[in-house]
This record gives sequence, C-alpha cells and structure tokens, in this order.
Amino acid sequence: MLGAWVDGRVASSIGLDDRGLHYGDGLFETIAASAGRPRFLAGHLARLARGCAALSIPMPDEARLRAEVAQAAALAPHVIVKLIVTRGAARARGYAIEGGEAPRRIVIAYAWLEGPDHAAAPARVARAERPVARPPAALAGVKHLNRLEQVLALTEARRRALDEVLLCTDDDRIVGGSMTNLFLVTGGELVTPPAASCLVAGVMRGEVLRAAARLGLAVAERAISVADLSRVEGAWLTNARVGLWPIGAIADRSLAVHAWHSPLQRQVRQAALGVQDA
Amino acid sequence: MLGAWVDGRVASSIGLDDRGLHYGDGLFETIAASAGRPRFLAGHLARLARGCAALSIPMPDEARLRAEVAQAAALAPHVIVKLIVTRGAARARGYAIEGGEAPRRIVIAYAWLEGPDHAAAPARVARAERPVARPPAALAGVKHLNRLEQVLALTEARRRALDEVLLCTDDDRIVGGSMTNLFLVTGGELVTPPAASCLVAGVMRGEVLRAAARLGLAVAERAISVADLSRVEGAWLTNARVGLWPIGAIADRSLAVHAWHSPLQRQVRQAALGVQDA
Repeated sequence: MLGAWVDGRVASSIGLDDRGLHYGDGLFETIAASAGRPRFLAGHLARLARGCAALSIPMPDEARLRAEVAQAAALAPHVIVKLIVTRGAARARGYAIEGGEAPRRIVIAYAWLEGPDHAAAPARVARAERPVARPPAALAGVKHLNRLEQVLALTEARRRALDEVLLCTDDDRIVGGSMTNLFLVTGGELVTPPAASCLVAGVMRGEVLRAAARLGLAVAERAISVADLSRVEGAWLTNARVGLWPIGAIADRSLAVHAWHSPLQRQVRQAALGVQDA
Repeated sequence: MLGAWVDGRVASSIGLDDRGLHYGDGLFETIAASAGRPRFLAGHLARLARGCAALSIPMPDEARLRAEVAQAAALAPHVIVKLIVTRGAARARGYAIEGGEAPRRIVIAYAWLEGPDHAAAPARVARAERPVARPPAALAGVKHLNRLEQVLALTEARRRALDEVLLCTDDDRIVGGSMTNLFLVTGGELVTPPAASCLVAGVMRGEVLRAAARLGLAVAERAISVADLSRVEGAWLTNARVGLWPIGAIADRSLAVHAWHSPLQRQVRQAALGVQDA
C-alpha cells in the first residue's frame, strides 16, 4: 500500500463492527491511474452508484469520492486505486439493514507496475474445474464485496499455471473470468455475455463495447456456451487494469491475436486519454 | 458490543488489508452462551474446521479458540459470541490466495436478551420475493462471510413484518431461511433440506437431527419444494440463537405448534446442558 484513507482521513484500520467485514456488505472499484489521472473514473463512479442502488446503500458524494481518488492517484506515476464503500458500522447485531447506517469510504493506493503491452504476452486460459453459482438478479453485475468464488477460481488458475480461468454456470454458460470479462469473435461478430449474467459488469467491458460500436464492428451481448469456444476466431479478457488482453490459448487450443485487437486497443486508449473526468 | 478481541488482544479495529473485508474471505460462528458457558461449542468448532478446509484457511488452534470464546462468554449472564476467522492480511493485491497468509481470529461479545420461549410466539414466515443462487458445491453449507443474499432477504422480511423469509432457488426448492434452517413435518416425517443445498448447515440443525433420532422419529434430509408447504403438519426455524422456533404461519396459512415440539425442545436443551465442551 502506498497510502490509505477512511472517510477522507489517513487510516490503516476500520472498526470491527463494519458490515463490510461481517457480511461483505459493500461495493468496490479498482481504478487504474497514470500520471495522477484515474482512468474511466466516470464509468467507475456510475457503476458504484448502480451498485449502491442495488444494495440500498446511499451513494457517497461524488465530488468527495473524486477528490479522494485523485489524492490516492497522485502518490506514484502508476497507481491502482481501490475504492471500497461499505454500508458502515452495524447498528445492531444480525444481517438485517436497520436503516440509518452511515456508509464508509475506504480508499487504498497500491503501487502498480504497469506491464508491457499484453498483446506481446497473450493470456493462457482454460475452463474452471467447478461451476460458479448463477448470480441472483439483484446482484448480477454488481461489484460487491462477496468474492469468495473469485478467490477460489483465481487461486485455481495460479495452481494450474494459467493467467485466468473461464467461469461456467451449471448450464454450461461462460460468464467470464474470475477477474475479467470475456470477449470472443465468432462468425465475424464480437460477442460478450450479457451484463445480467456477469459476476461483475466491467467498466472496461463497457469501454470495449463502445469502442467496437465506434469502429462499426458487429457486436452482440449474448450467452456464450462452452461449445462456442471451439468456434472462436479471437478472444480477449478485459478489466480496468489489464485493458484488452488477447487470449493466446484456451486449454490446448492456440489462438492468434485477432486483427481487431489493434484498432480496439487504440480506441480504448484514446477514450482513456480523451474522457474528461476531472 | 460488550468486548472484542483480535488474535487474543483487546481490539476495536482490524487492518484495512484484511481479506475478510476485501472479499469476505473468511468464516464465522454465532455462539449462544449462558452463565459463562458457550452452547454446542464442539459443534461450532467442528463446522469452523470444515469451513477452513473448504476455503484452505489453516484452522486456528482449537484450545486457543475455546479460551477466547470462554473469555467473551463470561462478560454477561447471556452473551452472543461471534467468532470470525479471516484469511488475514493480504500478501498482495488481488483475489488469489498467495499462500502463507496468517489467519486472523476476531471474537466479539454481544449482549443477548434471551427471549421468552419461542413456542409462545410462533414465527410468521413467507416465501422470499426473489430466488437465491444455488450455492456452488465448494461453498454449500459453509458459514463464510459472503452474506449479501441473507442481508437482502432478512431486510425484506423486516419490511414485510415477517420473522423470516423462506429462500428458494430458481428450481423452486426451499433451502431454508435467511438466518435459520427449516424443518417440516409432512406425512408423519421430519424433513429438512440436505446440508449440501443449505446456504449454512446450522449447528442447531445438526442438534435437531440428533434429537429426532434419539426420539425415534422418522427423519429425512431431502429437498423441500414450494408445493410441499401446502402439506405441512408442523414446521420450525432453527439456529443457535433461537433454538427451535415453531412456525405459526406460512403466508396466509396458520400452523399449530406440532406435538413433536416439546420433546424435541427438551432433547435439545438437555444436549445443551449435557455436552461437555470445556
């Protein structure tokens, strides 16, 4: 950690009564920042606001969040800013929301060694060994703090010397990676699972969809089955930190970096520079 | 809170780098204690050990846990002791377990106003408005810290002026309540959903199954469908705090307290007194 703040004050701890600890009752954003500038901050804050609405947590003041993220982003040339919003201290013992809880803002700055272009080191992935739960409608796509399935999945990926595992539900639909969203090219179309089936609907996922639209590519948000993987012409993992990471191998099958990689990457980079967040 | 300890020392906070906060990466037990004596402590510690195994968290030393729970239980005549074990401080940013994390023990004592006999105030329940996710096999029954579905469900119960909601998966199977396990009598048989389908396999659930066996009742652990509710002859909610709580109404349908209530209750109380945990 380069630095951390709770509710705007330098801090290294939170109260034992925080509902984020007890129940994972909160949300988070992982924001990449370079040269003091948080990327896609508007997108991160918009998703956070949607998550707050889903969990009935009052959305903290946006101007304050922007100032706190900017403070963290300024600590090094490249920073990952983790922004956590919990429902705050419990007002009574037990699961129920009592009402009147005061949301807590936690901002942590991590050193970030921004890697080389991921196109030079495509990702090795495979299907995860175990199915994940289909997220209930109220929580689908929400970047909440209940992340045990991802913890177990990414640990499996490390054990298998993979960069990522593709998570499937028990109906053999692929919902994405443990820390990434998934894009495929199949039949000349760029396909990604619908936001409502994603464990997290990524900010970078939205940027890639917008970039594809600007480039006039055929795009579809629809379910991806395990069988679809055998017809893939190109594929990417996406998140705010890795950007657009081409997949170079799905289990034993090699994949070339698709011709759409460079134009999509260029669009996303321009958006990162061009969007006026401050 | 009457008192709280982290790793055996009086504390009121934990580090911002704790994986329990970031991912819900940990487990908990809610232990009822009277006259300084934690009830069913062996059962709680056995379940905690199973949860630690499921999450690959090293189980903390049992003698130390017993001493810390006993210290908390001694703070008042009736205490709820919450024992949380997290994977501890993160060794790097990101979901993956790095290995070598040091589990953290959090013990919190809460004042407990042990209510009157719940048989005098049977529970009002109804089916929850939204389905819950079927837990993945690796996490089924494990009392981990990912509890957002329960938070939303119990909050719904409060809003509807119910004591509890019955949670169903999308295949219309009832997995239990938000904070309780469910027992029904139907066709002269005591039925409860299998542990593998429970969100939490309760310590009290195990005690009730053992009590029923001692009484020679016909018992089955099998799926309960929504349709089964119309054939119910008696029903209970169970957990370590409320014990055996008869259900008095499922939605609009009233239910009498079943004849098995008193003998089951007596068995469970005797077990609470008789088990030598210390």
